This record gives sequence, C-alpha cells and structure tokens, in this order.
Amino acid sequence: MINERLTKLRGKMSKEGIRWCMIPTCDYHGSEYLADYYKVRDFFSGFTGSAGTLVVSQNDAYLFTDGRYFIQAADQLKGSSIQLMKMGEPGVPKVTELIINSINKGEKLGFDGRVVDSETGLNFEKELEAKECSVIYDFDPTEGIWEDRPGLVYNKPFILDVKVAGESVKSKIERIRLKMDEKKTDVHIVTALDDIAWILNMRGNDVENNPVFFAFLVITDNKVVLYANIDDRDILSYLAQNDIEIEKYEEFFEKGMQSVNICTKKGILLDKTGANYKIIKAIGSNIAVIDEMNPSTYMKAIKNECEIENIKIANIKDGAAVVRFDRWLKEAIANNENLTELSVSKKLASFREENESYIEPSFDTIAAFGYHGAIVHYEPTAETDIQIGRNSFLLIDSGGQYAEGTTDVTRTYGIGEVATKLKHDYTLVLKANLKLLNFKFMKGCRGNHLDIVARDFFWSEGRDYKHGTGHGIGALLNVHEGPNNIRWNIPEGKQPGVIYEPGMVTSDEPGVYIENEYGIRTETDMLCVELETNEYGTFYGFEPLTYVPIDKKPIEIEYLSDEEIRWLNNYHMTVREKLAPMLRGKDLEYLMDVTEPLKR
Amino acid sequence: MINERLTKLRGKMSKEGIRWCMIPTCDYHGSEYLADYYKVRDFFSGFTGSAGTLVVSQNDAYLFTDGRYFIQAADQLKGSSIQLMKMGEPGVPKVTELIINSINKGEKLGFDGRVVDSETGLNFEKELEAKECSVIYDFDPTEGIWEDRPGLVYNKPFILDVKVAGESVKSKIERIRLKMDEKKTDVHIVTALDDIAWILNMRGNDVENNPVFFAFLVITDNKVVLYANIDDRDILSYLAQNDIEIEKYEEFFEKGMQSVNICTKKGILLDKTGANYKIIKAIGSNIAVIDEMNPSTYMKAIKNECEIENIKIANIKDGAAVVRFDRWLKEAIANNENLTELSVSKKLASFREENESYIEPSFDTIAAFGYHGAIVHYEPTAETDIQIGRNSFLLIDSGGQYAEGTTDVTRTYGIGEVATKLKHDYTLVLKANLKLLNFKFMKGCRGNHLDIVARDFFWSEGRDYKHGTGHGIGALLNVHEGPNNIRWNIPEGKQPGVIYEPGMVTSDEPGVYIENEYGIRTETDMLCVELETNEYGTFYGFEPLTYVPIDKKPIEIEYLSDEEIRWLNNYHMTVREKLAPMLRGKDLEYLMDVTEPLKR
Repeated sequence: MINERLTKLRGKMSKEGIRWCMIPTCDYHGSEYLADYYKVRDFFSGFTGSAGTLVVSQNDAYLFTDGRYFIQAADQLKGSSIQLMKMGEPGVPKVTELIINSINKGEKLGFDGRVVDSETGLNFEKELEAKECSVIYDFDPTEGIWEDRPGLVYNKPFILDVKVAGESVKSKIERIRLKMDEKKTDVHIVTALDDIAWILNMRGNDVENNPVFFAFLVITDNKVVLYANIDDRDILSYLAQNDIEIEKYEEFFEKGMQSVNICTKKGILLDKTGANYKIIKAIGSNIAVIDEMNPSTYMKAIKNECEIENIKIANIKDGAAVVRFDRWLKEAIANNENLTELSVSKKLASFREENESYIEPSFDTIAAFGYHGAIVHYEPTAETDIQIGRNSFLLIDSGGQYAEGTTDVTRTYGIGEVATKLKHDYTLVLKANLKLLNFKFMKGCRGNHLDIVARDFFWSEGRDYKHGTGHGIGALLNVHEGPNNIRWNIPEGKQPGVIYEPGMVTSDEPGVYIENEYGIRTETDMLCVELETNEYGTFYGFEPLTYVPIDKKPIEIEYLSDEEIRWLNNYHMTVREKLAPMLRGKDLEYLMDVTEPLKR
Repeated sequence: MINERLTKLRGKMSKEGIRWCMIPTCDYHGSEYLADYYKVRDFFSGFTGSAGTLVVSQNDAYLFTDGRYFIQAADQLKGSSIQLMKMGEPGVPKVTELIINSINKGEKLGFDGRVVDSETGLNFEKELEAKECSVIYDFDPTEGIWEDRPGLVYNKPFILDVKVAGESVKSKIERIRLKMDEKKTDVHIVTALDDIAWILNMRGNDVENNPVFFAFLVITDNKVVLYANIDDRDILSYLAQNDIEIEKYEEFFEKGMQSVNICTKKGILLDKTGANYKIIKAIGSNIAVIDEMNPSTYMKAIKNECEIENIKIANIKDGAAVVRFDRWLKEAIANNENLTELSVSKKLASFREENESYIEPSFDTIAAFGYHGAIVHYEPTAETDIQIGRNSFLLIDSGGQYAEGTTDVTRTYGIGEVATKLKHDYTLVLKANLKLLNFKFMKGCRGNHLDIVARDFFWSEGRDYKHGTGHGIGALLNVHEGPNNIRWNIPEGKQPGVIYEPGMVTSDEPGVYIENEYGIRTETDMLCVELETNEYGTFYGFEPLTYVPIDKKPIEIEYLSDEEIRWLNNYHMTVREKLAPMLRGKDLEYLMDVTEPLKR
C-alpha cells in the first residue's frame, strides 16, 4: 500500500518536473500536536510517530526520525522501500544534507511551503541556488492521491471571561501596538495558535491537548483581522465588539498576505521561528521584516493575577484527582490487582474526568513501569503495555486542561521493595527538585542559571539527565510554552534564555534514567515570585503550583539534609492545606497520612 | 596651577577651532595600568585616581569619576574650576551624554584618538554628525603646554625560554594564521600588550605591575612586523630568527597603518574592543574589518603544560612568602607591635622580595583593616593609612610577578576577638569559596553558570557582593586577563562568557562588605581541569593554584557541613604538601600548625 502511494507520488512529481520531495511533520503553525489532516508523512510512509521527515526522490525514499522512534519506525517501515535514517547516529546525514548532497544540477525540490518552517525553507533556497537547483514550494503531495484525507475540523471556540483572562483584548492589542511601534513596524502577523488564543481571550478545540483553534491574526496600526472559520453568532458579535474583522481561514495565504503587503508602510513584525516558508515568500521583497519574538509570546508568559488565581484552582482540582488516584493505586497494589500501564493511565484519567471543569489531558499521559521509565518520552500503547510489577518504580507524567488552567505533574511511585540504589536515585531527584523550588535568586537570572542549581547534585556524582530541568506552561493553553524554560546549556552563537520575572510558570522536573532498568522523575510546576527587595537588590524565588504528595517510601533519609527535610515537609503542608477542603472520608485520611512530616 | 593649565588648553583649543575637549585615562593600548607619560588627565585636573575623564569646554570643565574616588576627587579638585561629576549617581549624565547634549551645531569636539577606544570614538562620530558637529581626533592637548611631560620609557624586554613558554613563537603565529584564514582575512593587527608579549614569548617592564612592553604587532599571511623600540642585539637577533621584522614604535600609526592598508587583499582581523579610534580611522574605507576577539586572547587563556607547571612553582614560592608573613603578623600582633596597613603591606612585600625570581607586585596591594575592608578597591596611602586595631578583620589582597608566573591571593585575618556576626560572614565567604573550588560541572559551562554556585550562599540570605566571583589570570602576564571570568549576569543584548576549558586559570574570590564596619574576601586561584569522561559526557572541575592557609580562627564551625570541613582540610593538606619543602624551623612549625585538619 505504501509503495503504491509512493509510486503515485512519484508520478505526480514527475509531471511537475520535481525530482525530490520533502514531507515533514508539521501543520501551518508549527504546532506541537497535529490534527489528522496534517498526517501526510504517516500517509506516505506508514510510520505513525510524532516526529519525522519523509524524503522521496524518483529512485529512493528515506524516513528520518529520532531515537525515541527507531524501533517503532523500523517495524512500521517493514515491507516498504523506505530506508530508515536514524537521526543523531554517527554517519547519518541531516535531511538538508542528504537532499543537497544528492540533488543534481538543474533538478527541483518540491514541498508544501505551508508545513515547512521558514528557516529550513530559506536554507534550502540558498543552498540549492548555489547548485543551480530550485525549490517548488507550492507542491502539495496529497492532491489527487490521498482521496479520503480527513478534512480540517474547525470546532467552535469559546470566549474566556475577562475575569478569568485578567486583561481585556483591547488592552492586549494596545500593548502589542506599542511594541510594534517601538520596533518601527505597522503590521504584525501572528501565526502561533496559542498567541492568537491568548490575545483574543478565546480558546478552541482544533488541536489535541492544546486548547487552540486554527487561525492567523494580522494586527496593523489601525485594524485587526482574524483569519478563522467561525460562524457562531455570539463569537462573531464578541469579535465585532473588540473591533476585530473576520475573514475565512483559507483566505490568509492569498488575500490575507496581499492585504498585508498593501497595508504596511514601515515594516512587518514577524516571528520567523514560528512562521512557515510560504508566508515569508508571500511578503513583498521591498518590505522590511523585523524578525523578533511575538510581543504576545513574552506577555502571555508573565501570568497576571487572575490567571495565577485560576491556575492555582486548576491545580487544586488536579491535585485532588491525583491524590484519589494515588490512594486507589496503593490499594490496588496491596490487593494484588492486575494492573498495567494503560489501565492505571485510564484510571487516572477517570478521576480527572469527574471534575466538571476538566476539559482534556494537556498531553498524552506517560505511565511507565520499570525499564519503560528510562524512555524519556515513553507513552504506553496496546503494543507496549506491560504489567505493573514489583520492586521498581512506576513513573506517571500527566496533566489536564481545566476551565481554569493547565496542569502538568510527574510523580514516581516505589512499588514493592525498592533496592538501596533505587532509593538513592529517587532521593537524588528529590534533592534537585526541592533545591530549585526553594532557590532564592537575584533579578537578572535566566533559566540557564537556574538549571544547574538542580543539576549540581547529578554533576557532583558524574551523572546527568539529557533534558532541560523545566519548561514554561500556559494558562489554559499549551503545556509547553516559551520563552521561559530552565535549560543550562547556551549553544555557541545562540542567545541565552530570557530573564526570569514574577508571573512566569515553569516546571521543575529533574530525572534519573537507567537504560533497561528504571526511570525516576519528580515534577512540580512553579510560579516565579518576588521574595524581597533590599539594599542589595531584588530577589526572586518560586512558589509551588502543583499540589500532589511526593511518595516518601523510597526516600533514603540519611542522604537528605535537615534543610531538605524541612523543604519537603513545608511542601507537604502546602499540599495538605490546599487539598484538604477538596477531599473527604478515606481520601482525606489518605492525604493527611501521606503529608505527615518526614522525621529522621 | 590647574586653572592656568586649563586656560592654556582653552587657548590652544580656540586656535584650532575646538569648542569641547575630552581627556580620558588611557594609553594607546587600553592597558589597565598607565605609564606616567599618559597621565594627561592628572596634569590638567590635579586628580590622581586611576579612573576618570576630564571634559573641558571653552566655559566649563568637568571631571567624571566613579564611586571609589568621589572623596579623593572632591579634595583634589578644590580650588580649581572643575566640577566633579559623580558617575552612577542619579541625574548625573554620562560623558558622551553631557557633550552631545551641550555641544552646539557646527562646533568641534577634540581629543587624541590614540587614547580613545574605538567604540567611544565611533559613537561620538555618529551622534555628532546628527548634530552637524565634527570630531577632531588628532588633537593632542599636551603639545606646547605640558613642557616637562615625562617621556615614554622603553625598557629592555626579556625573552622567555620556550621551555617556560611551552610553545614556540612560530607555532603560535601558525595557529593565529589558521584563524585569520578561517575568518577570511590576511592581515591581523594586535594592539593588546599582553597578547603581543604572549605571541612573541617576550616580557617587558614598561607598565607598572604588567610585565609587558610597548608595541604593536601586525601579522599578515606572509610576514610579521613588530613596532617596538628595541635596540638590544640579542633580542633583535631573536626576532630575526623568528622571521619578525622590526620597526620603530612611533612608526605604527602612520607608516604601519599605511602598509596594513596596502597589504590586505581579503580583510583585516582586528579586535575593536582593545583598538583605539585612531587605528580604526586609519583603515581604508573600502577594507573589510572583521571585529573579533584576537585569536591570541583565547589561546593564551588556555595555559599549556609548561605554563601550568611554572604557575605552580610561582605559587609555591608566593605561598611560602605569605606563610612567613602570616607567622610574622601573628607574632607582631601577639607582641602588640605598632602595625599599620602600610607597614604590614611593606612587610609582606619584603618577604616576597627575598625570593630571587620575584619581579614586582602583580597589582597594588590592598591591606585594609576594619571598615577599610568594605571598600572593594581600597589601597592604603600615607593619607588613609590606619593602625591595625583589634576585634575586626585585616583583609590583604596581593600578588606577585615571578619569573615563573603571576599570583593573586586574598586572605582575611581575624585580629583579636571576632564577634559572632563577623564569624558568620567569614564562614559564609569560606563556604562559597570552597563550593566553587570543588564544583564538578559538564563541559559547556560558562563563567555565568559557575558564579552562582558560589553566590547561592549569599542569595539564600538575601545578600550579594557587587563584583564578579573571579577573573582570568595571565602566565607571567596581567593579573586581570580575559576572556574567562566568573560573573553571573548576562546583560541584555550581550553575549554570555566563554565556555570553560581545561588550562584556564581563574580566581575564586567571593566577599562580604559591610559599609563602615568590615570586609572579608577569600581568594584562591584555580586551574580548570578535566575530571572524567563517562557515558554522560565530559566533566570538568578546578584544582587550587594558590597555596596559602586560610585563617581557621574566625570560622563558625556549626555553619560548615561535613563536606565543607572535608574540603577545607583537603585544601590545607595540599598547602602543607606544597609548602613544607620550602620552609624550615619556626616557619615550618607554623605551617604544620595552621594546616592541621579542622575538627568539630
């Protein structure tokens, strides 16, 4: 079937004089999660992982994917003529390298410029020009081939009350216009779906896990145009009240970009990181483009008081659900019930679903027992699902979208008797997590600084974890949100991370991953707050937003300092205070029990 | 007298049609220490501090200096018509702001472009053009006025044996040429005196504390020209052997720059940070200038094995001298001898001078008792000198240039009975110092990361010290050497510090400064070394290079963790091992005593 599809694709390419075709995994907005409509790479390759690029030439086909998917991809590519390209392995070229090195003078590379990020597109353009080759960026590989392609679904979005959003749309647009003016531009194109949702105080349901809707937004110095397929009268009237014009989503690439070119006198403010190549190509060559982070990306990272209050409510609701799950889990294990990764994952979802303001998971739940825990992005499927055994860890990383906000929490549970080595590592993760949560720092610190405060414990043992210590989190928005994040490394030639400011919400999630053995991660969402201003300057710190008890059983108490024990006990007191009013009966008893202070 | 000089200057300005004149504190190379020849600002203002800029207009005169010198400058300006401009105080403009805001259309600003850094010069050029004003950059304010101006003295430099330098001149130039080629340039101008000394394996004595000689160096793809006033036959023959042509120092600005312009076909590699404005203006406008750090600046920061061995020898010699001083100090205090900051400073110098390979101090000794310790850059003079009293700290920050290398050490001595609060702060500084010295980190860390490892102890108490935690140190070169340094802050729009690599030498010197009360600083020079490479990656750490006991008396032992006590004891064992062979009799007994392990 795959080979048939490739044959059709090659025929189509041939007709259009295209020798090479690239099919990435992306939508028009660079979103993290994709609607089915965008699963073009899946269609042509049979590979269903969340990341990968298919490259098809007249003779060959290659699927590029990363370490998370080597096994799955090898399996799914069986029987096809597609070669698996293991990204990051020695000797494996990058997608651009393969194409640029293989393409012959005069040949054409085709792709759909709407699903290729601008940097990749511009790079191809430059490199291929040097080889006297060209790029065809309006080549849609699916046209006439993928006959039962699912349509793009435009679900009805909803409006956030200003009491929840904390700031009116008009105020947000006013602040954005000040920034446009500062950057000497009069037009601003917003392509990031979460930024559009934030600016308009609206949320949607077009993308899995992310409460956003398909749209482009154009802000000029005197009007705002939303390109989105909305026909609900209330929403249309809401938009009108906010002086927002509406156009069809499909009109953006042609009519929208034409009007942008006509409107601008000074220049266009556009965050190229998120913009696709087709947009870049649609901008008149005489027009100045200021490539900077969207003003809204930074603004939405600094949560306002309403948002913070609501995020706390969401986390209280979420914490109560997770505590009820924890109690159920402990009992089920004590009763030797037959549990698997998928069954506990479903059970956890069911506790969240009981809450009326719960909308959906904020990402696909990771429930990993034993050696599965060492696979950082493991997600149990019917094929991989294993039983919850004994004498190891069960790592659960999950979160919810609630009417009030977004949650993300990881707890690792010691199941059965946990060996000394495992306890040591569990305690190591806990120390790192608590240290960052309780770190007091001067204004001016960036995520690069904050990361090593947690990582120090690992480095001192000559160990490390191969992911950042934290990511920004949206307010009823994407669970992964920039620009704030906690990552130590500043690659050569790159800018450091943003300076931390009160109102930023970030996860704190160090981890241990021992291949083929076990994985441990403890994740607490944190709010950046001001602690004091004195003669030395201004000091910031963090306040926990996740209220979920940390399993005390696997702790190696001798390895904790008095201060660390105090930090853990303080955290558990906060959890108790926040959750006690939400729980009753045995659940409440359970909460009181697991939040009892740890003593030497 | 000052007013007379200013009158003469104004007459001269008037003749040349100059309305404003700027006299900074600088030599032709942006050196930290100045030869007397360059003390033009002192001559016209009477102010003798190490930093400041004099601005003279036809009507007014202003001296800009920083907080270290407010009192001294106010005093020295008395009786002159010069207004003191306290830099950094609210409402006080910057030098450029004052001039740009005050100058009228069509007026001229004059200065000697050889003592103005290129950034300042270019900034004036741009800002003044906008006001239809112009810059005269060959205006020498001293000509015909400073009649007894001391001449520039060109002392005979000396050659470092390649066994000391560890790398031949030819090899260094070859490495630099590879970098020039990489940057697509064929000419490289080196203006930094320490870089020139390092490249040529030569040292000099033209600048106080810095073992360098006045020179410019031009490296092209096929020749090397040294502009320096050298007439010693041995050195001339050494240069000839290394294929280095020699021209008079004075020829550089005219003949040298003309030849540079003729030589280059591809472009000039020039570190503008250290280059003066006159050099920039002498480059043909059609010539590409690649503004990057001198390749030699980075190369000389990574000390080679010979340099490291020699630096260790210098530190052993220095440590032995300081231990002998310490013993003398303790006895003198016990005997109630009459001691002052200056007298102990001289005594310390006399111990260093006993060593035959000692050359000179590597910077002016800071010997500060009590409240003087809180002034970070305090240097005792006849006017400020006070007695060494009791029940406070004596802070001594000093270092030497030895034939084998450069040292820099700060120790703080508790004199008499030290109160609990002082002990706490002393121990705080010690904890921070030891933590950084013993920090294990992954390759990729920059000084920005390393700084907060030490500073964390201060921040957790809501305190800070207003200087970096460490600076790079030369190998028988400048005691302040880039590009490595340990400073946490990355100002907006600036690049982070360089990545730490084995061979870099940096100080570790946290401090406490309580205004009008006391100051504490503990400084240990450290060598970056590789600790291990394992499945997680490569880990680096530090090895101490300073071998001087740390006063145990003011330690608050309850505040130290077991690990910190172990670190201190390990350090003292290293000091004992290194110094014992250098000491005898009572000095050796003293060493054994003060390096005894600290016990709870």
